[in-house]
Amino acid sequence: MDIHALTRELQMDNGSKIVMLVADGLGGLPMTPGGMTELETAQTPNLDSLAWRGVQGASIPVKPGIAPGSGPGHLALFGYDPLHYKIGRGALEATGIGFELQEGDVAIRCNFCTIDANGKITDRRAGRISSEESAPLAISLRQVKIPGVEIFVEPVKEHRFVVVFRAPGLGGNVADTDPQKTGVPALDPVAQDTASQRTAEIAKEFLSQAKKILSGHPKANFHTMRGFANKPSLPSYREVYGLRAAAIAVYPMYKGLARLVGMDIIGAAHTLSEQIDTLEKHWNDYDFFFIHFKYTDSTGEDGNFQGKVARIEELDAILPRIEALNPNVMIVTGDHSTPSYLKSHSWHPVPTLLVSDCCRPDPHKAFNESTCITGGLGQFEAQYLMALALSNAGRMGKYGA
Amino acid sequence: MDIHALTRELQMDNGSKIVMLVADGLGGLPMTPGGMTELETAQTPNLDSLAWRGVQGASIPVKPGIAPGSGPGHLALFGYDPLHYKIGRGALEATGIGFELQEGDVAIRCNFCTIDANGKITDRRAGRISSEESAPLAISLRQVKIPGVEIFVEPVKEHRFVVVFRAPGLGGNVADTDPQKTGVPALDPVAQDTASQRTAEIAKEFLSQAKKILSGHPKANFHTMRGFANKPSLPSYREVYGLRAAAIAVYPMYKGLARLVGMDIIGAAHTLSEQIDTLEKHWNDYDFFFIHFKYTDSTGEDGNFQGKVARIEELDAILPRIEALNPNVMIVTGDHSTPSYLKSHSWHPVPTLLVSDCCRPDPHKAFNESTCITGGLGQFEAQYLMALALSNAGRMGKYGA
Repeated sequence: MDIHALTRELQMDNGSKIVMLVADGLGGLPMTPGGMTELETAQTPNLDSLAWRGVQGASIPVKPGIAPGSGPGHLALFGYDPLHYKIGRGALEATGIGFELQEGDVAIRCNFCTIDANGKITDRRAGRISSEESAPLAISLRQVKIPGVEIFVEPVKEHRFVVVFRAPGLGGNVADTDPQKTGVPALDPVAQDTASQRTAEIAKEFLSQAKKILSGHPKANFHTMRGFANKPSLPSYREVYGLRAAAIAVYPMYKGLARLVGMDIIGAAHTLSEQIDTLEKHWNDYDFFFIHFKYTDSTGEDGNFQGKVARIEELDAILPRIEALNPNVMIVTGDHSTPSYLKSHSWHPVPTLLVSDCCRPDPHKAFNESTCITGGLGQFEAQYLMALALSNAGRMGKYGA
Repeated sequence: MDIHALTRELQMDNGSKIVMLVADGLGGLPMTPGGMTELETAQTPNLDSLAWRGVQGASIPVKPGIAPGSGPGHLALFGYDPLHYKIGRGALEATGIGFELQEGDVAIRCNFCTIDANGKITDRRAGRISSEESAPLAISLRQVKIPGVEIFVEPVKEHRFVVVFRAPGLGGNVADTDPQKTGVPALDPVAQDTASQRTAEIAKEFLSQAKKILSGHPKANFHTMRGFANKPSLPSYREVYGLRAAAIAVYPMYKGLARLVGMDIIGAAHTLSEQIDTLEKHWNDYDFFFIHFKYTDSTGEDGNFQGKVARIEELDAILPRIEALNPNVMIVTGDHSTPSYLKSHSWHPVPTLLVSDCCRPDPHKAFNESTCITGGLGQFEAQYLMALALSNAGRMGKYGA
């Protein structure tokens, strides 16, 4: 069942406004048995006040027991079934550095590697070469010229860079050239379907020219190609929800994910406060605002419990500025949990809060992992959150007569 | 959506251990309005202590309102969608008596019946003939010989027995011969597809020879054939979860179900204590242990409320021996509810408890039908329990980047 079949049919425009504030990796765990989570530890008077007026629940990003990456985590929050809509690795890497993929582009994750005199790989990551050293090398590959193909090469980090081929009709289904072990040569790029034959040929030619350009470098004298992927094809927010949507994010990855569903990227904020400046400035221009806050995830990934607590408190302190704009629906949630205890994304359901004048409030006067379990939204799959948002905003008619 | 598509892709082996203790028919009901269930009545200090450290929820075996048999109940717990994977009646009957079906076998449930001089059925169950009388009769049918086919005949209980045909390429799609009423002759076995033509012919020949062998018996002078079924084809635990799995069960049915998903059947225990002996002995040999406890179901089926309470207390008392082994994930659940009040399997959600060092504990300090409703796992379909187990054991990577 695709929820968009319903939202496409039932959507209405009443001029109401929805704000979705995503605290990345919001959900947590206690550090010791019987202890409190990051969100339970944080002083969050504004969230508590919203909890009093709103309804909360525990959102399951994908399915019970499945920890998602940022891609599926956000697609689910945006209301796109994360098991149906997949973003290829290459496309996600390009998105993550802010590269604007166009329809039909093929994006490829590349790794610098070291090969010996016989062409056998001796190090799959070129001695984990530093970004300072690898970026100019990646840029030097822009010398590669292949007739009829526009080629982009962008440094990422350390041994990683991205290559994008742009030419009409290129398929994205080509096997990795990384043999996943050393002592053997890199594989040739092999098309997995007819539509990708030309892509494989272009990749082969690229590798051949790159080998010459890189030859002589002591560590990064060749590279592999992985995760060939076309730009994913996602219906837009305008199409499936009838919303003019904008994303206010600091990091390229989240701007990129929002762009994939047709959101405008607005502002150039570097801080949460600047993000809210952007929100205020563009309040009349859009129906839906996605605000992304990264640091609840990064502190969690670092295992920095107190840091995550502080970031949650920072987020809480900004809420009155959003409330002052009187959104019809305000949502606070996360794309997944990132417990400091695990230092990684996890499968645990995510505390999610929805406030509108017609939500059915539950008895909770706080908002955290313990309260959300028994909140009025129950446990629900994140992909239904947008339908809840639209209905609470008065933007959905009834299904059937 | 098949959760195995995810577990196949994301599984990792970190050497951790999972124990799933299944108290058959665990869930119950109060005998009088306002009363307590069997699990609420039982003194369960060890379960309560696990509840304190763990997370609980109410598992729905198939879908809300659906009471499952043992087959779908266990398949769901094992993580196999019980609406997708079906075990034919004949195959389940053979499994239930411990018959080891091989790929391509066709198993058939047979009922002794009484026919009159005109071949019309006068009693579809041969006067509910006793097991003592019917077992030698079933064994006498081993005289049936059909060229090119290996034939097995196994007594079950009273008027029931099982026949298995083993020959290459036999399809299992043959209509029942039981006309479901008396006063008419049994039907001929009719193939429902081309692959089952030969099976139908073999069945016809079997019935013809059987009629001669049984003629003259006052009650059981013929038999019907129902539930023709091939061995079900289920991917193995090794394949879908990367687990070396073992089953420790007393009853053949549960050993058989475990065997169908590729578990090794270990030990020859007759008591719960002996089952735990087996667990201890083989602790280093497997990653996953399924321990089946039958008596919570059989007492429930008997309507023996106090008996079920006592069996739950017996189960509780053994828990410290399992805990002493320090499993990374420990689960206590049931395959369905069997309330003494109903004397049958029921559709009620099943109290389910999961303990690991990274589960997100809920506030409950007891474990029963009332607490599990508001537990941290919420209400969830049993088929997702294995994904939760794997993630809590650190055996799953994240989905998407």
